[in-house]
Amino acid sequence: MGRITERRPVVRIRDGVVSERADTLVGEEPLEIRVNGRPLAVTMRTPGDDFALAAGFLVSEGVLASADEVARIAYCAGATAADGEGRVTNTYNVVDVRLADGVAPPSLDGLERNVYTTSSCGLCGKASLDAVRTTARWPLPLTGGPRLAPAALAALPDRLRAAQRVFERTGGLHAAALFDDEGTLLDVREDVGRHNAVDKVVGLALTRGDLPLSDAVLMVSGRASFELAQKAVMAGIPMLAAVSAPSSLAVDLAAESGLTLVGFLRGTSMNVYAGAERLVLGEAAATARS
Amino acid sequence: MGRITERRPVVRIRDGVVSERADTLVGEEPLEIRVNGRPLAVTMRTPGDDFALAAGFLVSEGVLASADEVARIAYCAGATAADGEGRVTNTYNVVDVRLADGVAPPSLDGLERNVYTTSSCGLCGKASLDAVRTTARWPLPLTGGPRLAPAALAALPDRLRAAQRVFERTGGLHAAALFDDEGTLLDVREDVGRHNAVDKVVGLALTRGDLPLSDAVLMVSGRASFELAQKAVMAGIPMLAAVSAPSSLAVDLAAESGLTLVGFLRGTSMNVYAGAERLVLGEAAATARS
Repeated sequence: MGRITERRPVVRIRDGVVSERADTLVGEEPLEIRVNGRPLAVTMRTPGDDFALAAGFLVSEGVLASADEVARIAYCAGATAADGEGRVTNTYNVVDVRLADGVAPPSLDGLERNVYTTSSCGLCGKASLDAVRTTARWPLPLTGGPRLAPAALAALPDRLRAAQRVFERTGGLHAAALFDDEGTLLDVREDVGRHNAVDKVVGLALTRGDLPLSDAVLMVSGRASFELAQKAVMAGIPMLAAVSAPSSLAVDLAAESGLTLVGFLRGTSMNVYAGAERLVLGEAAATARS
Repeated sequence: MGRITERRPVVRIRDGVVSERADTLVGEEPLEIRVNGRPLAVTMRTPGDDFALAAGFLVSEGVLASADEVARIAYCAGATAADGEGRVTNTYNVVDVRLADGVAPPSLDGLERNVYTTSSCGLCGKASLDAVRTTARWPLPLTGGPRLAPAALAALPDRLRAAQRVFERTGGLHAAALFDDEGTLLDVREDVGRHNAVDKVVGLALTRGDLPLSDAVLMVSGRASFELAQKAVMAGIPMLAAVSAPSSLAVDLAAESGLTLVGFLRGTSMNVYAGAERLVLGEAAATARS
């Protein structure tokens, strides 16, 4: 266990013909994220870039905004498991993030993340939006950030797919990539969980000292949920592009935050749900929108 | 807010031509699930079938196994929010499940679900598998459950897609469906979260008194993660079929639990990762596998 891909036997059926072979599957293992030694969350993730995943998760939660807020990230030495033959080894599935002095740890309220309750508001989409607004470190003014022509955006999905190494072998991974404002690939990570893939690229950017990612485009291989839009906003990313559909709350968050949200980015087509000001649309657009 | 679909303005770009129109998006709102008044979890879900979602979630958690273990499910009367004009209304985003006398509530340990830690084992995939084994109410012997020919399985994806009403309009939903052992559709639900769609069909089955779903096939529109395999096992469903790839841990859980796991179910092709005994493969198969 603990690998990015694993081999398992499979019975293949093709037009009624049955055969057996070995198949490559995407690895999935639980990762427990601790902060200052206290358990915060567990996510089912594809092993690899675990420290980045933990750091990026804490960016999304509003705990971290720069690398110097982290004192140390390490696997827990005491987190061991017995393998099939009784040998005890480190599972590498528990990561502890030690915060630098003065950095406030997250509250531990017994609920999952994206939990936004206030005494006055019960629980609603509006409360979720408010929570992001009050914790986001970096505003996303529509006059700033990357500006891309539709043709430049249309080139991103192919570049993302070309960079997805594990997907080719398993078909089982979500991908998240960062591009610069000229459409050059900066980084890409794959994971069985779409939110983990985003956390990994954001966590690596934190480590490099690249937050906020004020000139970047975050591209995801699937849909754009509220959670992914939240992660973009929390990392200071002004543009989120998705191959598939966004949800209503993702669009609401984008509109409120100044995040450009592009969905159904396929071929030369796309839908811009918020922040179209960052697309270089030319004269035809100006006419159509007037 | 709070609807299954919502309309938002969108800037469409098709081959360089820009236009504005309204687009239908899948609704996404947070739902807080409480048990006996205590908050347990929050999930981002598509509104609708909220009581079923809460009940199905508690089946997956090992809390519920039959309808008579539930005393009452209701929206929290005190969970209100102010709308844009200051009116205070119930948000319908907080559901409380009152358990019948004698039913043990889940532990509240401050971590997300699928959290399986033991003092001896740290955290590993094996621990996740063990936790399902120790909490599952119904064994899945390979001599029991539905038996289907590959051709019968191959017919399921089209039936699932035909039953997906919201997907047609939004492109933004995962679906989960129950089929009987002759491939007849029993139920289908859609949700922005794949796990929520499964919880909804399982929760509705609980309400109907249909658990364990010993003769059913659970079909999902996307990938088969550990979490989805876990939900099948906890509901006593012997067969899980997915349009896309399974993860390694989903396959391991299936093999250990007696769950038949079919992936890449497309056209007349499929891969059987565990429990092939429930497929009626005929003589050609027997030859190939000998």
